[in-house]
Amino acid sequence: MAAKGTKGNPSKEVLEEFGGGILKQVEQGKNPKFIATARTKSNIIYDNKKGYLSLGRATEERNFLNIAQTKRFMQTMAIAAKCHKFVNENLHTSIRGLFYQLKYSLGEDVDENIFNEQAESNPLIEDLEVALGLKREELNLNANRKGLLAGNFKVMDKFGEEKLEIDASKMGRSGWAIPSDVDNDIEFVDIKAKYVLVVEKNAVWQRLNEDGLWKKENMILLSPEGQASRGTRRIIRKFADQGLPVYVFNDGDVWGWYIYWTIKTGSINLAYIGKDVATPEARFLGVTMSDIDRYDFLKNMTMKVKDVDLKRVQEMLGYEWINRHEEWVNELKLVLKNKTKIEQDALQGPRLTFISDYVKEKIKNKDFLP
Amino acid sequence: MAAKGTKGNPSKEVLEEFGGGILKQVEQGKNPKFIATARTKSNIIYDNKKGYLSLGRATEERNFLNIAQTKRFMQTMAIAAKCHKFVNENLHTSIRGLFYQLKYSLGEDVDENIFNEQAESNPLIEDLEVALGLKREELNLNANRKGLLAGNFKVMDKFGEEKLEIDASKMGRSGWAIPSDVDNDIEFVDIKAKYVLVVEKNAVWQRLNEDGLWKKENMILLSPEGQASRGTRRIIRKFADQGLPVYVFNDGDVWGWYIYWTIKTGSINLAYIGKDVATPEARFLGVTMSDIDRYDFLKNMTMKVKDVDLKRVQEMLGYEWINRHEEWVNELKLVLKNKTKIEQDALQGPRLTFISDYVKEKIKNKDFLP
Repeated sequence: MAAKGTKGNPSKEVLEEFGGGILKQVEQGKNPKFIATARTKSNIIYDNKKGYLSLGRATEERNFLNIAQTKRFMQTMAIAAKCHKFVNENLHTSIRGLFYQLKYSLGEDVDENIFNEQAESNPLIEDLEVALGLKREELNLNANRKGLLAGNFKVMDKFGEEKLEIDASKMGRSGWAIPSDVDNDIEFVDIKAKYVLVVEKNAVWQRLNEDGLWKKENMILLSPEGQASRGTRRIIRKFADQGLPVYVFNDGDVWGWYIYWTIKTGSINLAYIGKDVATPEARFLGVTMSDIDRYDFLKNMTMKVKDVDLKRVQEMLGYEWINRHEEWVNELKLVLKNKTKIEQDALQGPRLTFISDYVKEKIKNKDFLP
Repeated sequence: MAAKGTKGNPSKEVLEEFGGGILKQVEQGKNPKFIATARTKSNIIYDNKKGYLSLGRATEERNFLNIAQTKRFMQTMAIAAKCHKFVNENLHTSIRGLFYQLKYSLGEDVDENIFNEQAESNPLIEDLEVALGLKREELNLNANRKGLLAGNFKVMDKFGEEKLEIDASKMGRSGWAIPSDVDNDIEFVDIKAKYVLVVEKNAVWQRLNEDGLWKKENMILLSPEGQASRGTRRIIRKFADQGLPVYVFNDGDVWGWYIYWTIKTGSINLAYIGKDVATPEARFLGVTMSDIDRYDFLKNMTMKVKDVDLKRVQEMLGYEWINRHEEWVNELKLVLKNKTKIEQDALQGPRLTFISDYVKEKIKNKDFLP
C-alpha cells in the first residue's frame, strides 16, 4: 500500500507520482510499464492467521508495447487521468459516470471508443487500485450504496462546505443510511455502543428498531439489506477496529450464511482490499440449524431447500475458511440431512417481540458460531 | 373508504366493526360474508379526469359457505385478527412476519397450515385493505423500504416514546432514508423547498447532492433507487398535496419511463390505493429521445435497445394514459425508429457538473413532457 501523507491530498500525490513515472519512462525511450499485484484466482489466498481472503505476492507487469496489453494500458492511463481530474476538482462520481466521461473524451471523430462496455473499464479500475495502493473511494469513485444503521454514536460528515453532526441515535424509524464512502471526510465519534449487531433483512431491522433493541442493549443495529455493499463492509471493519464485537444475525440458509462469510472473511471479488473490508472477529448469532431443535415452534416454520441450495452447501464445505470449523461443518451437514432452511423472520412466529428476546438470549449466553 | 375518526385508534375501530359484523352474522345463523371492491383486471380503470389508475365500482362478495371461498374466508379472518392484535400492541411487522405468525397460530397438531406460501396471504391482505378502506400501513404491516431524499424541510417522527425532529437539510452525503410508512405518527413540517426532483438512480442522486443542487434550487432531491416503493410513491403524493410541483429525471428508456408513469398514474398492482400513491401532476424532465438531438455529445453515448425494450414500447403505446399525449407517442416512435436508449448517467460525459446544469436548464425553461 502506498503511504498516505498527512497533509495535501494523498490521492493526488500518488496519482501524480504514478503518472510522472510513466511519463519519465516514455521520455527515456523506454517501454512504459507498471506493476500490479495479480488478481488471478491462483493469487487469491486465505491466510488462517489473518482470517481473511487477500492477494498473494504474485505480480503482473502491464506494459504498453505488449500488443495484447496496449489497448488496456492506454485505457488504464485514461482512467488514471480522469481520476486525477476528479480528485483535483474534489468531485465524485460512480464507475458508470467514469465510463461515460471516457466515452466522451475521444469524441465522435475517432472510430473506436476508449471503452464500449463498462465491463471493460471495471477490471482496469481494480488494476489501478492495486497498482496505486488506493481504494476506488480515494480516487473519488463511489461504489453502490446500501445499508442502514442506528445506535449510540455520532457521524461527523464534512460534506462540501459544511461540517454536519449526525446523531445515529436520533434517526427514528428510518435509521442512518450508510454512505458509499465511510472513510474520506467522515468520522465516527462518541461511540457509546458496546457491540454491533448485523441483521440481514431491512424488514427485521425495522422490527428490532421498533422494539428499541439497540437502546436496551446499547448496540449498533445495522442492516446490509441483503449482501453487504463495500461501504457497509468497510464500516463494520471500522467499528471492529474500535474494539466493538460484531455479531451477525441472518437467515438460516446458505445465502444468509454466505452473507456472513463475506462480512467475516471477505470475498474473492474484493480480495484485493481484503484487509479493509473483512471482519474476521465477527461471530454468527443465528439462525442455525440447531436453533430448530432448541426452539420447538421453528420445526413448523422451516422450508424445503432447493437443489441450488444443496449445491451451494457442497461448495461451502470445500472452503478451508469454513471447513476448519467443526460447528459449521455440522450446520452444513444438517442441511444435507434434513433438507430444510429457516428464515430469520420466522422468529416473529409466537409474538412479534420474540425475535428481540431471541437476540438477547443469544448475546447473554454468548451463543455464537465462529 | 371507511371514515377515520379523529380520536382513538381509527384502525382498531374499523377492524372491530368489521369483526363485530362478521360475528353478528354468525350469531344470527347467517352465512358470514363481506364485500370487497373487485381487483380484477376488468375493474381497473383509468379515469382521464382523475389521471390515475383506480378500481371501478364492481364489488365481489366473499362468503364462508361458498366452498371455493371457505378457506380464503377463514384465512382473511385470521389476517384481520392478527392485524387487530398488532394494532392493539402498537407493534409493526412485514407481511412476511404476518405470514409466520399465521403459520405459528395453528401449531403442529393440525395437519394443514393456514398458509403454506406467502403468495396465498398477500392477495388476502389486499382484500382486507379494500374491504376496510385502510392501507396495510394502517394495519401495522410495513411494506419494503427503499428511497432517499434531501431538502429544506423537517420530519417529525413520533417513534415509540420519542418525538424526533429530523432535518432533511442536514443529512450530508447520505440523505434521509424514506421509511415504509410516511403517514402514521410522522409529519413533514417547515417545508421551504419549492419543488421535488425525483432522480431514478442513487448514483446520480449522489452526484447532484454533491453539487448542492437541492440547496441552490431550493428543491427536494429524491431518489426512489429504481422502481418506487409504496412509501416513496406515497411521500411524493404528499409533497404534491402541499402544492409542490414534481419533476422526474430518469433514464431515457422504457424502464426509466415506466418508473415515471408508475409515479404519475400509479400501477395496476396498486390501483386499489391509486388515489394515495399516484401523482398525476408529475412532469417528465428527461432523459428524452429529443435530448439526443439537442445535446450533440449524447449521440455518442446511446446504447442499442434490445427486443424486450421494443416489445415494451409497443405495450406503452397501447396504454391510453400514455398514447393520449402526442409528445410521448413521438418519444416511443423514436425508439422504434432509432433503436437507441440513453442513460441519465451519460449527462456526466462532458464534465461531472454538466448533469446539474442540464437539470437547471430544463427547470428554467419549463421543458417537460406531460
